[in-house]
Amino acid sequence: MDKLDYVVRQLARTKSKKYEQYVVTGIVHKLNRQDVKFVTQQYVSRDNGARRALTDLYFPAVGVHIEVDEPFHGKQVEQDELRTSDIVNATNHEILRIKIEDATLKSLDQQIDECVTFIKQKLNAIPDLKPWCPKDDYAIEPHIERGYMDAHDNIAFRRIADACNCFGYNYQSYQKGGANHPHFDNVLLWFPKLFENKGWSNTISTDETVITEYALVESERHLHFDKHINDKRNQRLVFAKAKDSLGMILYRFKGLYELDVIQSKAKNMLVWRRIMTRVPTYPADLGKLAR
Amino acid sequence: MDKLDYVVRQLARTKSKKYEQYVVTGIVHKLNRQDVKFVTQQYVSRDNGARRALTDLYFPAVGVHIEVDEPFHGKQVEQDELRTSDIVNATNHEILRIKIEDATLKSLDQQIDECVTFIKQKLNAIPDLKPWCPKDDYAIEPHIERGYMDAHDNIAFRRIADACNCFGYNYQSYQKGGANHPHFDNVLLWFPKLFENKGWSNTISTDETVITEYALVESERHLHFDKHINDKRNQRLVFAKAKDSLGMILYRFKGLYELDVIQSKAKNMLVWRRIMTRVPTYPADLGKLAR
Repeated sequence: MDKLDYVVRQLARTKSKKYEQYVVTGIVHKLNRQDVKFVTQQYVSRDNGARRALTDLYFPAVGVHIEVDEPFHGKQVEQDELRTSDIVNATNHEILRIKIEDATLKSLDQQIDECVTFIKQKLNAIPDLKPWCPKDDYAIEPHIERGYMDAHDNIAFRRIADACNCFGYNYQSYQKGGANHPHFDNVLLWFPKLFENKGWSNTISTDETVITEYALVESERHLHFDKHINDKRNQRLVFAKAKDSLGMILYRFKGLYELDVIQSKAKNMLVWRRIMTRVPTYPADLGKLAR
Repeated sequence: MDKLDYVVRQLARTKSKKYEQYVVTGIVHKLNRQDVKFVTQQYVSRDNGARRALTDLYFPAVGVHIEVDEPFHGKQVEQDELRTSDIVNATNHEILRIKIEDATLKSLDQQIDECVTFIKQKLNAIPDLKPWCPKDDYAIEPHIERGYMDAHDNIAFRRIADACNCFGYNYQSYQKGGANHPHFDNVLLWFPKLFENKGWSNTISTDETVITEYALVESERHLHFDKHINDKRNQRLVFAKAKDSLGMILYRFKGLYELDVIQSKAKNMLVWRRIMTRVPTYPADLGKLAR
């Protein structure tokens, strides 16, 4: 998908609220920066455990969201869509609110202009802004070079193999839902759907610190529980499988989680608790791991 | 309807072609003129008899249309919608074409910027540009003050009474489909639907110079024909009843038409031929005509 295709498809989605399309297209066109990525209708979570929300426009490079506040338009988050959707961590992000009530065409255009000025200032404050390049959006090299990845940086991959290759693997492809961490015997790389799906009831808390997991079929539930409650692999690097705003699959890094044995036994399901948002990455050990 | 409501509703309509919304919102936002009216998806006719067309964006003040040329997107004019839609005369208008084929995001934004520059130049060239005011869009006073109205100026009214009051009447309301011209015994003010409708088969040629009319029911057809073929009122000032781009009724001035008796007899239907696009207007003769 090239930039034009991406941008056109993103803007075509903005039509659930009456004034949303006007505001979103206004900010994008007046910003007029082909080197800056934006996302429409982005689900977000915040560390403070606030409810998940849907923002109308999101600029990942500066962590700025725009929210069109329409009168009488309750913040309806579609629970069904939310379940399967990609959610970014907006803990340190800023949310600008556009007020529609009592707005005139002129005053609304002024609010749009102020938003654009704010975003431009934010962009100018980044000393080495990397121009948006769609094919690099899900590249692994920056994470390996950096030496770590942090869930607060909203990192995602298109393929399971890419996530694996950030920790020492050198896969061309990989289809399973889990892979052993090449450098830590007790860590599994895990690629779950964090919502109820075929055979599994998985959840993640709104602040993303707790994941629960059990098999829906009663007989399998015990087998699964017993297998994992005493497994040496009591930590998981979690990449949640979800759909992005254009409906494409991605795997979003959520952090390192550890099995809470006491809670798990109390609830009769696996309870995973986040212990780190930042974990080290590793280049491929070609001698040891190449396939 | 205030400006904001109008603008939002106009832009929300632009979604039949993939790139249309991006281009149309881009031009509107980058022009950034709250004092300049625009219309999306405007049907147009031209004096040269070219097929009627649908333009994606139209600026009435400068007679400029924008057409998004998408590859593999045939110029599909919806015949059903066209029948009942308002059609403006675009004889002396300019049509700017935005080429999508081979466009990148950057090159498309450049085309949008060039369009905006062109429209700004056109606006600057108007010495006394009247700021757009929605409530004045269908006012009658300018036409009475000017002393004439011309079909090439694309004049329309919301109500039949308003059209009547441009020729000497002083109606509060008027519901019939015709009214005698207060100053000319042989002229009828006529407010037809120029498409097949309940009981009537009416047409207007694509160059708008010929209107035909007959009753669909055979028995009434003869009565109607006989009544009018020898009527002293052999001229009609035509205001076509149609729906504007937001679905609201209006009456669009088409010109002065005269009965072509020979053609009418040959075709067994009334054939009206345009003899003038410009006709004189008259202030209300309150003594003679007030009701």
